[in-house]
Amino acid sequence: MKFRRSERLIDMTNYLLEHPRQLVSLTFFSERYLSAKSSISEDLGIIKDTFEHQGIGTLKTFPGAAGGVYYIPKVKEEDAERILDDICLQMANPDRLLPGGYLYMTDLLGHPNMVQKVGKLLASAFASKEIDVIMTVATKGIPIAYATAAQLNVPVVIVRPDSRVTEGSTVSINYVSGSSKRIQTMVLSKRSLPEGANVLIVDDFMKAGGTINGMISLLQEFNATLSGIGVLVESEHAEDRLVDEYVSLVKLKNVDVKQKQIEVVRGNYFSRREVVTNENSEL
Amino acid sequence: MKFRRSERLIDMTNYLLEHPRQLVSLTFFSERYLSAKSSISEDLGIIKDTFEHQGIGTLKTFPGAAGGVYYIPKVKEEDAERILDDICLQMANPDRLLPGGYLYMTDLLGHPNMVQKVGKLLASAFASKEIDVIMTVATKGIPIAYATAAQLNVPVVIVRPDSRVTEGSTVSINYVSGSSKRIQTMVLSKRSLPEGANVLIVDDFMKAGGTINGMISLLQEFNATLSGIGVLVESEHAEDRLVDEYVSLVKLKNVDVKQKQIEVVRGNYFSRREVVTNENSEL
Repeated sequence: MKFRRSERLIDMTNYLLEHPRQLVSLTFFSERYLSAKSSISEDLGIIKDTFEHQGIGTLKTFPGAAGGVYYIPKVKEEDAERILDDICLQMANPDRLLPGGYLYMTDLLGHPNMVQKVGKLLASAFASKEIDVIMTVATKGIPIAYATAAQLNVPVVIVRPDSRVTEGSTVSINYVSGSSKRIQTMVLSKRSLPEGANVLIVDDFMKAGGTINGMISLLQEFNATLSGIGVLVESEHAEDRLVDEYVSLVKLKNVDVKQKQIEVVRGNYFSRREVVTNENSEL
Repeated sequence: MKFRRSERLIDMTNYLLEHPRQLVSLTFFSERYLSAKSSISEDLGIIKDTFEHQGIGTLKTFPGAAGGVYYIPKVKEEDAERILDDICLQMANPDRLLPGGYLYMTDLLGHPNMVQKVGKLLASAFASKEIDVIMTVATKGIPIAYATAAQLNVPVVIVRPDSRVTEGSTVSINYVSGSSKRIQTMVLSKRSLPEGANVLIVDDFMKAGGTINGMISLLQEFNATLSGIGVLVESEHAEDRLVDEYVSLVKLKNVDVKQKQIEVVRGNYFSRREVVTNENSEL
């Protein structure tokens, strides 16, 4: 059965959204819809324009026999601002204050919708980097890591504080936690990270950066390369920050336990991330 | 600027896919595209037909002033079979064998694409159940729980073996692990699960079911109701299974360490899940 244009546009949109950063050949679509490649090309032009106009992302097309199309998720400037301000507002809710000045963030990180937005922002920030794998540490970084990985079409590896029998042989290192100055251990399954991989490190929270620094040491054991570091929240007052090149979505500026006030501002997302040219962006 | 039908179809497809199981009013779309509600209704008819034909899911439309449309992700019978057989094939790879007859599954669970398929299958299996929250246990169940939650549009709560300062006050229970018969502890943040919630329990692996049974006990502490149990893998030879009503995607039938053979078959997905009427399904 031949597909009509309207049906092709709907199914292609779903297909491209499900396969980010993967080259899909014109032949594949042409056979899927029993339609001429010229029609498919026209469809892709309409999808590209709409994706860019609506802030969904962009399509790259490659001509020729081995050619095809490639969907890159990208968040529009104004949408990013709105999402970041929403996160700031939600985080500044004084109900989050826990004894010791800690913040309860489990509900925020529990909503797949919020987590997906965070993932799309981080994926946009590192869109032009070469990334083979996303690394995070158990437990809170995991949802953000998967959400970012889904947009970048790469696997996730999870570093743990202890080794498990189901992980096979592991590599373990000791590191010094930045804030408490305690010596801790982190472990990564040997076969989970291929030698020489380009790795994006993702986590939910960075204080002094000791944990992230530990992951960077772990990368060396695997001859892996650091492609970047992305965190949802960075805290201020980390004078001895162990990590200097990173992208943060929001910054915890001040927690006043007595006055029950939390001040949260945008992180360095707009200043540090890659400036990607995009016809429809405000940059 | 008025949107053309082709642009509306692309953007609506993206919007609906990003907002499963949420009522979106015709007014919302009509204002978003500066188009008449009659045109929006026609668009939705085309999207519904294409979603059902292509096995993406279905749309429910509600007429009237407060009416709108509601996207329900659903995997087609034949697609489900293909995904399950692919998981079986990948799991049966003898390279997964670890000392003690354990299986290395970290790579499978590390691929967001695979995890999303598993999530969509579990969401399809429980599509007609009332579910407010998905519960899982750290660490391996987390990606599957989020992937399922994204399709069902509900938050995830994560049970842990220990309590963390960032979780606030917690409820803790002791349970007996089904296979090792050891007493273990699990902990859930008090404010993460609202009283009386309908909970779907999701995990990566079920042997005797001790951990899942522990989570069921924990539900009672919160006056929560069990809506269902879904696991990626169940193991055979669990005569004293502590849990009897569950949906499994695949079943580990036999692990022969000497012969280096792993036998994996489809789980009870097709027999136990809800039979949902769908014009395009083979059922």
